[in-house]
Amino acid sequence: MPNILSYSFDEYVKMVASFHGYPAPGVLIGGYMVDAAYKRLPEGGLYNVVCETAKCLPDAVQLLTPCSIGNQWLKVIDVGRYALTFYEKRTGEGVRVYLDWRLLDTWPEIRGWFLKLTPKEAQDEASLLREIQEAGTDLCGIEEVKIALDSLIRRKSPISICPSCKEAYHTSDGAICPACKGGLLPYASPIPDGCRRHEPQRSSRG
Amino acid sequence: MPNILSYSFDEYVKMVASFHGYPAPGVLIGGYMVDAAYKRLPEGGLYNVVCETAKCLPDAVQLLTPCSIGNQWLKVIDVGRYALTFYEKRTGEGVRVYLDWRLLDTWPEIRGWFLKLTPKEAQDEASLLREIQEAGTDLCGIEEVKIALDSLIRRKSPISICPSCKEAYHTSDGAICPACKGGLLPYASPIPDGCRRHEPQRSSRG
Repeated sequence: MPNILSYSFDEYVKMVASFHGYPAPGVLIGGYMVDAAYKRLPEGGLYNVVCETAKCLPDAVQLLTPCSIGNQWLKVIDVGRYALTFYEKRTGEGVRVYLDWRLLDTWPEIRGWFLKLTPKEAQDEASLLREIQEAGTDLCGIEEVKIALDSLIRRKSPISICPSCKEAYHTSDGAICPACKGGLLPYASPIPDGCRRHEPQRSSRG
Repeated sequence: MPNILSYSFDEYVKMVASFHGYPAPGVLIGGYMVDAAYKRLPEGGLYNVVCETAKCLPDAVQLLTPCSIGNQWLKVIDVGRYALTFYEKRTGEGVRVYLDWRLLDTWPEIRGWFLKLTPKEAQDEASLLREIQEAGTDLCGIEEVKIALDSLIRRKSPISICPSCKEAYHTSDGAICPACKGGLLPYASPIPDGCRRHEPQRSSRG
């Protein structure tokens, strides 16, 4: 059975269950997608990742590589395609790996799950995991790509205090912070300015 | 010295270094922000998280809670504010914790770092980490909030094959996938349709 980088399938299943909450098929297949990309990356490069879905796949990247959301070596641009790209951060040369539905004819459980042809209650989880393990990287479409590095430059901006919410934000975002411009955050109602602040309490614990 | 949930500061520093690549001040302070939120959450709820920045803070959430980007219990809406909200997933009732710059007067290294008043080369890393440890949750502004759950509903859609890129996508996104509508992904040039596919190779490894 193929390994996922240096991990056996069973070891990886445990890592996924611990980090992701359960051994989700998408994170397991994602492990093989990361593995497939790694095998094609020239040695000695410094690689960042773009992930084309927020669902499952980013956790495979975070479990198996140094790239995380918080260190921003992993960026999620959620267009809903099950694909990721590793690219060299100075040249933009990269490898894109995607789950290719055209390769799923011999893997009916994976096909039913991925294309949502099998209702959740009719999925056979054991068969699905067995197919994932047997298929390994054989489900992966792979292509060489080039990333436009300009479009991924991280903002470097001084910090200002937003005159509206009184919190710190990037000066380059304009006269008020993006949150106060509205429409982005999911808060149900504006918090009345006069009563929204609580002085931090020193907890009795810790 | 205050713990971060069940971890000592030194234990947490090691966890951060392992996952994030280095013990970034933002992830360390983020640990105390998660801790401050946890202390105010009623027991027995099921909590998801919204993070208002992609920088550092999501990794504190992913290290200390069951919420990850890939399982979508953590959602990043990057408005550049150093804040996170834990909310009960059925009621929307939540606690928002933010790094309050008005509480930084007694912590000059943290203030210089957070407001970008101290150039990176002039930062005293040891002092900065010592201040973070001493300050604990005392830097946290805390407020009760309510999340509009409707705005965070995950899409449930059948899957279609995009007639343009031939990959699977959510039917609800329209006649072609969001990637093919353009402007979202950072690829330098369109990949010629005739030659973009490589048959997956069975690797000699694994």
